[in-house]
Amino acid sequence: MSCCSSTARRRLRQTDLVTQVNKQVRLAARPSGLPTASDWTITSEPVPAPGPGQFVVAVSYVSIDPAMRGWMNAARSYIAPVELGAVMRAGAIGKVTASEHPGFAVGDDVFGVFGVQDYAVSDGKGVSKLDSSLAPLTAYLGVLGMTGLTAYFGLFDIGRIAAGDTVVVSGAAGAVGSIAGQIAKLKGCTVIGIAGGPDKCRMLLEEFGFDVALDYKGDDLRAALRQHARDGVDVYFDNVGGDVLDAVLTRLARGARIILCGAVSQYNAQQVHGPANYLALLVARASMTGMLVFDYRDRFGPATAELARWFGEGRLVAREHIVRGSVTDFPEVLLMLFAGANAGKLILATGTS
Amino acid sequence: MSCCSSTARRRLRQTDLVTQVNKQVRLAARPSGLPTASDWTITSEPVPAPGPGQFVVAVSYVSIDPAMRGWMNAARSYIAPVELGAVMRAGAIGKVTASEHPGFAVGDDVFGVFGVQDYAVSDGKGVSKLDSSLAPLTAYLGVLGMTGLTAYFGLFDIGRIAAGDTVVVSGAAGAVGSIAGQIAKLKGCTVIGIAGGPDKCRMLLEEFGFDVALDYKGDDLRAALRQHARDGVDVYFDNVGGDVLDAVLTRLARGARIILCGAVSQYNAQQVHGPANYLALLVARASMTGMLVFDYRDRFGPATAELARWFGEGRLVAREHIVRGSVTDFPEVLLMLFAGANAGKLILATGTS
Repeated sequence: MSCCSSTARRRLRQTDLVTQVNKQVRLAARPSGLPTASDWTITSEPVPAPGPGQFVVAVSYVSIDPAMRGWMNAARSYIAPVELGAVMRAGAIGKVTASEHPGFAVGDDVFGVFGVQDYAVSDGKGVSKLDSSLAPLTAYLGVLGMTGLTAYFGLFDIGRIAAGDTVVVSGAAGAVGSIAGQIAKLKGCTVIGIAGGPDKCRMLLEEFGFDVALDYKGDDLRAALRQHARDGVDVYFDNVGGDVLDAVLTRLARGARIILCGAVSQYNAQQVHGPANYLALLVARASMTGMLVFDYRDRFGPATAELARWFGEGRLVAREHIVRGSVTDFPEVLLMLFAGANAGKLILATGTS
Repeated sequence: MSCCSSTARRRLRQTDLVTQVNKQVRLAARPSGLPTASDWTITSEPVPAPGPGQFVVAVSYVSIDPAMRGWMNAARSYIAPVELGAVMRAGAIGKVTASEHPGFAVGDDVFGVFGVQDYAVSDGKGVSKLDSSLAPLTAYLGVLGMTGLTAYFGLFDIGRIAAGDTVVVSGAAGAVGSIAGQIAKLKGCTVIGIAGGPDKCRMLLEEFGFDVALDYKGDDLRAALRQHARDGVDVYFDNVGGDVLDAVLTRLARGARIILCGAVSQYNAQQVHGPANYLALLVARASMTGMLVFDYRDRFGPATAELARWFGEGRLVAREHIVRGSVTDFPEVLLMLFAGANAGKLILATGTS
């Protein structure tokens, strides 16, 4: 006990040298449509000190996710909305700078829902320690984090992919989509990726090894799917919704499985575009199933180990789009997701590390 | 062989005495919206004679089903469209009047896809013999036919109902819906039926024993579902689509199953109303799955036996709405489905039986 508190005291002094201020991005208003500057306030507080059973984390990398847009709404969802005035929720990676917690020591690299701020206080719940010798820390936000696990459980548990399946992935150059397509390839599927623009499409083919890349901005998706999914689409991993979902619905194979992972095209819509072709599910005796990675928490260990093995063997390419700045850049970086400005996992690097 | 052909000759003579004419309803045009008189032609032919391996059926009861509207469209579906100029497809019950088929004898009561006509020639494929001592013949179009089997496999295989589940059924006073709700009750579920108008709602409670009846024309469905499905909807058996589907989507329990059986509100729509609330599937980690009864053909036997047992024990009420007339009344009777004018199984009785 004396050991712990002396360490804490020593580290607090060290922290004092770096900064006295904890900048935070708080939700000021519930946006209608795309979030704007007035939906946020930037606040500054003294850097917190840990109470008994707590530790303090200096945040280095903030995960930027489409789901954040949903958390800003007041509506009932799978998780409580971010309260007005609260620090914006975010998964993040950081380093423990002070600890009164027996399980976390100063210097530990950790992942947790630390929020969009420079420093967070934690009691350790939902926080995991990271091994930077296994992979770069940022990989724990992407391929070895919620991103990779979402792709993994979506494909295996909801999609029930099998070798020979024709798998379509939308948002295919994005964080989850790029991993999902690669895993499906690893498992012997034919993979058709849908992304926006020729650069992303080239990336799908050359960097991620997809079989086919379709540009939803330029291609006639329905015609292209008729051509490339001649026997129909067995599994569709949907990250975008909207017109792309409606196009894929026209090509379902008998018994197809649609993994409903997200709908980035709809998150800022005033009126959600429901899939007009949903009766294709009836014709094809197909299913559309919502999935949320947190439901698979009990199996994160072995799944992460498998993803790490593929990653270590070079069979999974983990592309990251890292924006270096400060937490105050968050509002602007978030908008990159909805503009399709990122490829791979979008991360805001806020630390000096 | 001599036996068979002499029987056939004898029955042909008998048939001659009844009628010489086979009236038929043929598809003349593909409707846009609700079918109108000009979408049909009535033709007359001589009553057919069976060739070798064939038999002739005098049709008595024509099943009137929402799915018929889909068969009239040119679009790809689970079954080929009815060709322009062809006799309209219909499940029907009739009596064998002439036979050159070793498996079917004159006088047999049979079910098959005989079409909207007075007489059909069949080679026996897909035709089943009916036992009129077990149930009235019309029950084989309803509770003991495709109607009952659709409810059965939808609830058990797609819905995976269990005692204690809250089950919502739309089109609840209709053929499939009324059976589905009763089966769910038999299995210990709390059953909420949605139908149009106070008369049908009364029927749900008094005749079919539902726990709750909601009138989509008069009630605020979302508010009523909040009140009556406090812990959410575990299973939704959807026969109607449209606004009702969107309302139920707002109340899904975690892991809910939506059985996509039909969408009678949308079959005549120029533009299908896709479910704007479909992202509720994601929030609730729920599924929406299309089902078609024909996929369960291998299990029709035991399922029908179970339905017949419940029916025989008086635990399933099989309401029928029988319109007596001739096949030429078909175009008008079909429209009753889309006007919600029927309760229970809609049947056109065309024979003299």
